[in-house]
Amino acid sequence: MQRFVNNPDDIVDETVRGFVRAHAELVRLDPGNPRVVVSTAAPVEGKVGVVTGGGSGHEPAFIGYTGRNMVDAVAVGELFSSPTAKSFHDAIEASNGGAGVVVLYGNYAGDNMNVKMAQKLAAKAGIEVLTVVANDDVSSAPKDEREKRRGVAGEIFMWKVGGAKAASGASLAEVRDTAQKAIDACRSVGVGLAPCTLPAVGRPNFAIEPGKMEVGIGHHGEPGVAVEDLKPANEIADEMVRIVLDDHDLPAGTRVAVLVSGLGATPRNELYVLYDRIAAQIEARGLVLAKSYVGDYFTSLEMVGATLTVMALDEELEALLEVETACPGF
Amino acid sequence: MQRFVNNPDDIVDETVRGFVRAHAELVRLDPGNPRVVVSTAAPVEGKVGVVTGGGSGHEPAFIGYTGRNMVDAVAVGELFSSPTAKSFHDAIEASNGGAGVVVLYGNYAGDNMNVKMAQKLAAKAGIEVLTVVANDDVSSAPKDEREKRRGVAGEIFMWKVGGAKAASGASLAEVRDTAQKAIDACRSVGVGLAPCTLPAVGRPNFAIEPGKMEVGIGHHGEPGVAVEDLKPANEIADEMVRIVLDDHDLPAGTRVAVLVSGLGATPRNELYVLYDRIAAQIEARGLVLAKSYVGDYFTSLEMVGATLTVMALDEELEALLEVETACPGF
Repeated sequence: MQRFVNNPDDIVDETVRGFVRAHAELVRLDPGNPRVVVSTAAPVEGKVGVVTGGGSGHEPAFIGYTGRNMVDAVAVGELFSSPTAKSFHDAIEASNGGAGVVVLYGNYAGDNMNVKMAQKLAAKAGIEVLTVVANDDVSSAPKDEREKRRGVAGEIFMWKVGGAKAASGASLAEVRDTAQKAIDACRSVGVGLAPCTLPAVGRPNFAIEPGKMEVGIGHHGEPGVAVEDLKPANEIADEMVRIVLDDHDLPAGTRVAVLVSGLGATPRNELYVLYDRIAAQIEARGLVLAKSYVGDYFTSLEMVGATLTVMALDEELEALLEVETACPGF
Repeated sequence: MQRFVNNPDDIVDETVRGFVRAHAELVRLDPGNPRVVVSTAAPVEGKVGVVTGGGSGHEPAFIGYTGRNMVDAVAVGELFSSPTAKSFHDAIEASNGGAGVVVLYGNYAGDNMNVKMAQKLAAKAGIEVLTVVANDDVSSAPKDEREKRRGVAGEIFMWKVGGAKAASGASLAEVRDTAQKAIDACRSVGVGLAPCTLPAVGRPNFAIEPGKMEVGIGHHGEPGVAVEDLKPANEIADEMVRIVLDDHDLPAGTRVAVLVSGLGATPRNELYVLYDRIAAQIEARGLVLAKSYVGDYFTSLEMVGATLTVMALDEELEALLEVETACPGF
């Protein structure tokens, strides 16, 4: 395993410590919990607090989206594992400005359970918590079972919209409703070309044979909808657009935001090769590309692959995406 | 080869096209040369033009540093190959606001030759061009042969300082002198854990055996100073700091900027693991960490590895680093 690792048990602590040290003008550690990263601007009196959390190994997600007009506090889990209920609770406490807190997170069993427990703890402490569960990954369940779908890179749009809405002085219910609208407007798909390795395990926990690709792969290597022969980049891009837009069903003229994220080990220039074709295909369907993000925004250690997220915009969502943010992830 | 590629001959065109499409608010293609990327703000009448250029495959370098208060125009080469003299010349023309142009580039044979030819072409067209050649890679030649050293990620500091100085209204000689001061203040080292593959070749053009690492590796896999057993991250970090600071020889109390860049396929969290130890070591030597950058700033396709750059700051360099920029790379 050719990696920069000390004791695998220490990776998350070292990652978070290095992260907070590198971005000290934007983030700090919670004094009582080294698995909670807090914006240096938080809490803001009278503002709705915005919290997320998830497993490590997806950097810059989740910690990189902590900052001004973004997420106020992030609960940090082990590699590819949910944060504890206590960490979610401590993040809620750290972001609480007295106007309630929204937890905007992804649809995974551990996160669902631990957020629910944290919500109960917060209620006892007198903090009202509302939640939004991201489920933008179209390949993880059929369209009529959207509540079973996982959350992936669409979460970044959910955080950006939710963070901007909270910064505008909106109420707890308004922030929750707008973040819900944001993730409802997102559809994502992932394609994997080579697996990743958890250092404590020392070998890939799933396989992608050379010459093959996994279409619809999840952020932890969850199986996709099809293992296919590896195709030229343009054909992969076409397939990603087709999967996302067949599910999304947007009328011509719809303004959209697009995010193409590498999964960790994809050369950056190849993300632009993919994006070039994706953008052309989206425009060919009569949609209007209002905003694009191309880069490593939500990774899976050193997986080779990419995700595409398309968000349908209305006036409010587009305006909130345009609000300036300061966070390490953008 | 598990990669997102169409015809390998088209990669650079597709990369540049996707890049310009994704960042149209910041960059455009030169109308006469699809291998020249120009800031949408350039040229600025009366401002010194700032140009760079280099091979593709290092994204976000070089094109990603085009923008406001940064580089005005970038000449784009094939993967790991110098841009042509014509492309450097067209970049010079595109950035010319009538006050002369600096070309801030890295010390490689092809770039040296082609920049020199472009400089002659520009002189005929009545544009004065001065150059700064980056040579921050300490492992590429001994200290008393600094003119033989290659340029690596220190170029990013050179561009940021040079771009900010030019934006301040400084003269051509002043911009050149300040960019020269910036790169003179930089020392870098790279460590490679796994090689990269040019898609047209289809297999790695150099080898790093499992269990080994190449200390002092160049941005194209140029051999380093030693092949060693792969060590824990902290020991690698210590060795990187030692190599850089033994060469740099900075008095205690010196304020420094640090850049830790992944080479393409290094998990983002491991860059923070490295950075955490690097920062501690730098502080232990009595230096003051004024500014840090951790991420994929200057890559080598999907090489596994990282570079460390340390820049010694004076008041002017620190102030210029703080000037706000708008470019896709930051």
